[in-house]
Amino acid sequence: MGKIVAGIDIGGTNTVIGLVTSQGECLVERTIRTKGEGGFINYILRIVDSVNALSEELGSEYRLEAVGIGAPNGSYNLGAIVDAPNLAWKGILPICSEMESRLNVPVILTNDANAAAVGEMLFGAAKGMKNFIIITLGTGLGSGIVTDGKLVLGHDGFAGELGHTTVDPNGRKCGCGKLGCLETYVSAPGIRRTIFELLASSIEPSSLRSFTYNDLSAKIISQKALEGDSIAREAFERTGEILGLKLADAVATLSPEAIFLFGGLSKAGDLIFEPTRRSMESNLFPIYRNKVKILPSGLQDKNVAVLGAAALGWQHLNL
Amino acid sequence: MGKIVAGIDIGGTNTVIGLVTSQGECLVERTIRTKGEGGFINYILRIVDSVNALSEELGSEYRLEAVGIGAPNGSYNLGAIVDAPNLAWKGILPICSEMESRLNVPVILTNDANAAAVGEMLFGAAKGMKNFIIITLGTGLGSGIVTDGKLVLGHDGFAGELGHTTVDPNGRKCGCGKLGCLETYVSAPGIRRTIFELLASSIEPSSLRSFTYNDLSAKIISQKALEGDSIAREAFERTGEILGLKLADAVATLSPEAIFLFGGLSKAGDLIFEPTRRSMESNLFPIYRNKVKILPSGLQDKNVAVLGAAALGWQHLNL
Repeated sequence: MGKIVAGIDIGGTNTVIGLVTSQGECLVERTIRTKGEGGFINYILRIVDSVNALSEELGSEYRLEAVGIGAPNGSYNLGAIVDAPNLAWKGILPICSEMESRLNVPVILTNDANAAAVGEMLFGAAKGMKNFIIITLGTGLGSGIVTDGKLVLGHDGFAGELGHTTVDPNGRKCGCGKLGCLETYVSAPGIRRTIFELLASSIEPSSLRSFTYNDLSAKIISQKALEGDSIAREAFERTGEILGLKLADAVATLSPEAIFLFGGLSKAGDLIFEPTRRSMESNLFPIYRNKVKILPSGLQDKNVAVLGAAALGWQHLNL
Repeated sequence: MGKIVAGIDIGGTNTVIGLVTSQGECLVERTIRTKGEGGFINYILRIVDSVNALSEELGSEYRLEAVGIGAPNGSYNLGAIVDAPNLAWKGILPICSEMESRLNVPVILTNDANAAAVGEMLFGAAKGMKNFIIITLGTGLGSGIVTDGKLVLGHDGFAGELGHTTVDPNGRKCGCGKLGCLETYVSAPGIRRTIFELLASSIEPSSLRSFTYNDLSAKIISQKALEGDSIAREAFERTGEILGLKLADAVATLSPEAIFLFGGLSKAGDLIFEPTRRSMESNLFPIYRNKVKILPSGLQDKNVAVLGAAALGWQHLNL
């Protein structure tokens, strides 16, 4: 009988559940609504039902051995989701114990970016690496850190929030309440803010002058940059400069072998990688220079959230 | 027969060798010149002779089980000192293998700040902690990082150079060649530079106006601050602000339980701790607030370099 692990990606709107082999192949998958009738326990029951239904679908050839969950504000140490801003249920949600008692397998939880890091290590481009960082560039900037082959969780299980390191203590207002956090510059909304700053400060013609703030996406900015729009190119340049500066800080702290960029903005390829590499190198303490690779994730086109969550479960089984 | 570990602190001028118990008690110690007749192997022989002489001094009641070395640019991974700027011998010095073959015990090497971190964990105020950072404030700013009970070494063994994270990419020239490194602001020379900046920009009377740059030490600045000199107080305030800002970045990366300050500047007590705590808290991502202690080292008045080096050896034996 083959072993299988469930990977569960909890988002504010949907929850995706997949059954994943030790080779990182997702054999079956389904999506349920995160919000729904009833309270948190009802949500747990709907997940459990889905895991059981997917297991039946696979047949008796496979046996479920563990569950891994990636969730916003998921605490590995507590096995609970703590005050997630985008979920309907507040406070501390003990999701691991509630699922363990119903599925009778170990259930491991962490946040999305940490799960992505474990996914990259087990199934992606970080295979065989023991010291690396993954940066997820989406509506925010998330990060997962691996040192000596293990996820850095820290004292409270919440390590790895590089998106909230400070670029400028008098800088842009961040959703977290602080000023000048990295993710206010380097993320999909961050580059949009940079575009609007550039449109305001320069008088250069740009096709971006015909977009509203609400309509302007990172994808459009990438397209315009590729078409040669100088404002869009300058925005990528500045975004990479700031990312590289803060990655140099991360290197001085952790000395990783590689840093992986994942998600939305990273799909812009050289537009973002090139200025990031250049800026990081020029801000590195000399002993680190020309040693640290900045690479695209190896799971770019896959469901990294489900694979990462499943990788957590697989890592737990193999420890 | 009791076990004993040799702790060796290699400095540019002197090398201190002590034999240390598992409880962190240094029973015998001697100091030799680092520079001397002959080359690197001659230096190794002089250390080995000293270790043997100290062992004889202790008598047959103790047996040497390991050697720990703290040295500038000491690489744990390589077991070698690499291009240390303040040593006479250049290139890669394979100190561990050279000593192992002569003493027939394991020899473990790392840099001074990393050794201090292990010393703090085994013998100091970090006993029982699994996630913490130690900051050594001297002529530079060194750091040692422990996560999940283990020293963070990184891919090349050189992790933990918080002194070379960037405060201002257009800031003060650093000895490493970069601009605006943390240690150009937060270290004994750093606060002196801040004093001279303040003496230049303000017109306030200050007893510090009668000191030359060469004569002004961190100790004098502390004394003047305690006597109420407003320039000296402002310099501590700014130093703490910058340290707190960068410690908040370190917390967002590592989520430690505590951060220990050690050495020269940290002896100024509240003058430096108070603004550092205030600035760190105000720059922390909300989930970390009121959780992370900033504490003085528990080994402040002891020979932390020898104890830290010995702790490395003890940690190796207990793994």
